[in-house]
Amino acid sequence: SRNIRLAVIPGDGIGVEVVTEGLKVLDAVGTKLETTTYDLGAKRYHRTGETLPDAVLDELRGYDAILLGAIGDPSVPPGVLERDLLLRLRFELDHYVNLRPVKLFPGVETPLAKSRPEDIDMIVVREGTESLYAGAGGVLRRGTPHEVATQESLNTAFGVERVVRYAFEQALARPRRKLTLVHKTNVLTFAGDLWARTVDRLAPEYPGVQTDYCHVDAASMFFITQPERFDVIVTDNLFGDIITDIGAAVAGGIGRAASGNINPDRTAPSMFEPVHGSAPDIAGQGKADPTATILSVAMLLDHLGLGEEAARVEQAVADDLLERQTNWTARSTHEIGDDITARVAG
Amino acid sequence: SRNIRLAVIPGDGIGVEVVTEGLKVLDAVGTKLETTTYDLGAKRYHRTGETLPDAVLDELRGYDAILLGAIGDPSVPPGVLERDLLLRLRFELDHYVNLRPVKLFPGVETPLAKSRPEDIDMIVVREGTESLYAGAGGVLRRGTPHEVATQESLNTAFGVERVVRYAFEQALARPRRKLTLVHKTNVLTFAGDLWARTVDRLAPEYPGVQTDYCHVDAASMFFITQPERFDVIVTDNLFGDIITDIGAAVAGGIGRAASGNINPDRTAPSMFEPVHGSAPDIAGQGKADPTATILSVAMLLDHLGLGEEAARVEQAVADDLLERQTNWTARSTHEIGDDITARVAG
Ligand SMILES: CC(C)[C@H](C(=O)O)[C@@H](O)C(=O)O
Ligand SMILES: CC(C)[C@H](C(=O)O)[C@@H](O)C(=O)O
Repeated sequence: SRNIRLAVIPGDGIGVEVVTEGLKVLDAVGTKLETTTYDLGAKRYHRTGETLPDAVLDELRGYDAILLGAIGDPSVPPGVLERDLLLRLRFELDHYVNLRPVKLFPGVETPLAKSRPEDIDMIVVREGTESLYAGAGGVLRRGTPHEVATQESLNTAFGVERVVRYAFEQALARPRRKLTLVHKTNVLTFAGDLWARTVDRLAPEYPGVQTDYCHVDAASMFFITQPERFDVIVTDNLFGDIITDIGAAVAGGIGRAASGNINPDRTAPSMFEPVHGSAPDIAGQGKADPTATILSVAMLLDHLGLGEEAARVEQAVADDLLERQTNWTARSTHEIGDDITARVAG
Repeated sequence: SRNIRLAVIPGDGIGVEVVTEGLKVLDAVGTKLETTTYDLGAKRYHRTGETLPDAVLDELRGYDAILLGAIGDPSVPPGVLERDLLLRLRFELDHYVNLRPVKLFPGVETPLAKSRPEDIDMIVVREGTESLYAGAGGVLRRGTPHEVATQESLNTAFGVERVVRYAFEQALARPRRKLTLVHKTNVLTFAGDLWARTVDRLAPEYPGVQTDYCHVDAASMFFITQPERFDVIVTDNLFGDIITDIGAAVAGGIGRAASGNINPDRTAPSMFEPVHGSAPDIAGQGKADPTATILSVAMLLDHLGLGEEAARVEQAVADDLLERQTNWTARSTHEIGDDITARVAG
């Protein structure tokens, strides 16, 4: 089998711990793997002032994929690492699809009293390179009573069309074949109009797919009251950020939410990361659940064409989650990692 | 007692039905009431092309308060009535506080398996006159592959400070005295910085209030997993739109979510409306729950200084909701209105 060249960015806080377990599982899959670790994150920032040096970014372009733990630390001003490291990676590597499955595994407890695994099984295709995440905006008269602060959402036909097409294809590949656009067309009239027109224009090219529309406020409610309403969702970068955290909550917690920052054109490596953050409050204590990272590893394998291996990892996680229900014991980060690794290897 | 001059805008769909019940309750309170109904909404738009004529807006300025049902109909292009009627009212009448209690009444079923009424009791102070709701933005090369669509979020020290002060005062008046800012400072760095600095700067003036910060994505999750975390929330217009729908869902449904669009300086009348929309799918069938409107009427009474009357209406609703649990029968819109009215009158 081929050799996977993987760049690993453990990052901050629990990122380091969960990535260790992800790599353990990856090893057990039996793929030839060559990993290089990059010390990007808060520590490097404090030591050298660097977030993502251009030379490192260029090097990263040469890998098959990137595995990232988590970025962020309270010792760094808000936005610095997020914007100059995490979001810069997503933008520079053109990760225009931020793929986030929302799936309640059997055995996992959901906070929703009446929802069952068959009710919560969707994929959110979040746009990853536009909208308010572009970083456009400014400030005038900062710190005075006359301060004005702006943020600009930038949206292009090019950027919207490619992610909507990706979402249509995801919908085609699933049994329900339903695609819901989530936006706020009644308030964000310019951007919303572009998104809605794009979905309508492309729909005839995917005759098997049923399309639907939902305002982001209503969708946020339906994630809780009628999650079965959704199959594939396509949405803007900011709305996708919010609804995938709601999705993580209803699917049993952020400890199980995986994601892929995908460049479908493969002009640069895609990057896989758990949806959760660096959780400085529990860092270094072996309390973090590595499951989200391990599921992200499954997405990584799938992206690299190793579908069988990906399925094996996902099955190992599913079995472990079911086992937790009937036979629950408190396990540390690396115990969970070991158990899932054993299932993958065995 | 004094005469309340009330402008009533039933609007579209179920708006008409729920407002009828709200007025019934208001009558039963025993205040002297003088109401004038305005036919703004989809019907008038189709008949005359008008959304909110300047002359009508000027007339509305003369009332003590406005009661609004719901605005919106699928026959009108998205955004037209929302922007030119509903949002125009909020902006022109300077409703800079959009006050939205999120409260699980005893007896009401929540979709959350483990949350109890004491866990879900917060007030969201949503800013009402700035940010992406300003309508700023534009489009270039519409309908071509080179289309660019922008939306601009406009935020001012003036606008942020006044709503943050209002929220601090709300927090002071509640037993827990906790104020949480919800924003996305790590991505919306200019606007987020203004909001965060404003809260920090004003905090020393309210020494009894404990302040906290939460990103909107995490807050959306915590509404589901740890709603007890929140007491008073202050947030931006768009984030407030989204999280109050999550709040409505966890507090047992949009049928119970009340709101006040408040001008605290009383330079123009405040406007009270249920959070739900016009629900064209069930309009005219007597299926709508008027409870959200009746609770909005309680907020209206409170705003007009009729605290005792407001408490009576809220108690009548609380009693009705408790009764529904033990003695449930399907009731039509006006039956629910009649039952609550009887409790208020009795
Ligand atoms: C850390 C932050 C910039 C990031 C985002 O907003 O995209 C995170 O919330 C996520 O969802 O991956
Ligand atoms: C109808 C729409 C413009 C409105 C809003 O976004 O404010 C509604 O969702 C609300 O919350 O009152």
